[in-house]
Amino acid sequence: MQRYFLNEQTDKEHITFQGEDYHHMVRVMRMQQADECLVVLGDRQVGRVRIREITETVVYADWIETIEKTVELPVNVTIACGLPKGDKLDWITQKVTELGAYAIQPFESSWSVVRWEAKKQEKKRQRLQKIAKEAAEQSHRVHIPTVEQLLSFNQFVQKCRQYDKVLVAYEEDGKQQEKTAFKTAIKQVKPEDNILIVFGSEGGLSPQEINQLIACGAQTCGLGPRIMRAETAPLYVLSVLSYELELGEK
Amino acid sequence: MQRYFLNEQTDKEHITFQGEDYHHMVRVMRMQQADECLVVLGDRQVGRVRIREITETVVYADWIETIEKTVELPVNVTIACGLPKGDKLDWITQKVTELGAYAIQPFESSWSVVRWEAKKQEKKRQRLQKIAKEAAEQSHRVHIPTVEQLLSFNQFVQKCRQYDKVLVAYEEDGKQQEKTAFKTAIKQVKPEDNILIVFGSEGGLSPQEINQLIACGAQTCGLGPRIMRAETAPLYVLSVLSYELELGEK
Repeated sequence: MQRYFLNEQTDKEHITFQGEDYHHMVRVMRMQQADECLVVLGDRQVGRVRIREITETVVYADWIETIEKTVELPVNVTIACGLPKGDKLDWITQKVTELGAYAIQPFESSWSVVRWEAKKQEKKRQRLQKIAKEAAEQSHRVHIPTVEQLLSFNQFVQKCRQYDKVLVAYEEDGKQQEKTAFKTAIKQVKPEDNILIVFGSEGGLSPQEINQLIACGAQTCGLGPRIMRAETAPLYVLSVLSYELELGEK
Repeated sequence: MQRYFLNEQTDKEHITFQGEDYHHMVRVMRMQQADECLVVLGDRQVGRVRIREITETVVYADWIETIEKTVELPVNVTIACGLPKGDKLDWITQKVTELGAYAIQPFESSWSVVRWEAKKQEKKRQRLQKIAKEAAEQSHRVHIPTVEQLLSFNQFVQKCRQYDKVLVAYEEDGKQQEKTAFKTAIKQVKPEDNILIVFGSEGGLSPQEINQLIACGAQTCGLGPRIMRAETAPLYVLSVLSYELELGEK
């Protein structure tokens, strides 16, 4: 069933669709009176609604039932990425949204060859935010990951202090067969923790950047013995968090 | 350091590079006498070698040191995929190689809209095999995942009997909040097991196909509460296997 995020609405008695959502429902999906869809309200309530009336600019719908189902990771995971090449950040945004990320934080790093021009930054951020919204709809989430503004490395390091736990996926740890830091950290995660996981771009992070992060309380860890590309490592981490926190044993 | 797979060779005393590898070393990388690279022999020995002589068609090299490091998953995981749309199988092949897959098995399924013409199948397989080889080099593996020939669904079901364990990622289990089958199965995995993990294409597998797989001993499981795209689920499974089998706790 088609799903719409109505972030501005929290009142189940007055569900309306306008603007882009109106266009999508009426022009793209050709929905009609009595058709049903799912909505996610600003307070994360999820419900099935039925169309009551379609005017020239507004769709009015009635709340049929509230859907109770936990689809969000029990921890808030922010994926921080040094700017990768080409369209990889698009791709990372889509995939980490499917895998339950809470937010995406791009940052500048000295070994990344990619720069975002100042005047294009907001446009690029909005583009990623749109990708996150579409992926959140597709994967039936109730939270759309926030794509944060690009930060300089120094700004980013300062922001690290806001999180309960900061882990840095560090290729050198992987190469040196560092095998325990990641699992040890993951096993200590508590529900509702705000976790930041930091990934370099293709070139990785410089030793100086790693030291700055460690000085702010971050912990480096290896993610197994194989070298993963910049865009693969965030998926590894979120998959494991889902496995640890959302699945159980018989 | 550049890495070459010399699958035809096992003799450390007589290392030679010809054909495509020769071309890559001499014409692309412009390597010269005394330059070094890594080689992986057919018996999975890994070594650092130094170029002794470059002729018109052959590079001769001396074995400098054997490199002892475990980079392969301790279980053999075959990723079986119903044919997905577009270039997604290219992408799956690259990513599951980075994450340690042992083999990739494409199969036809009734709800997949993609068909491979008979006369193009071998060419498509070879193309995927090349992607696996390049990804194996990049991620410093000593085994190149085998890309198997496309099988019809009935052929595929017969082949399932060859594996120690067959798991089917089943979206309906995920939707119905089935939460224990996957972790329970993963915890039972033993080193050297041959495991087959089955993924549908975008349309999923039909109930009849699921039943055929179950009749052959396969087990269905959910991979958490979010809906993942066809190309994301294999990465979830391999990430978790690496976490369970390759990482430890302090």
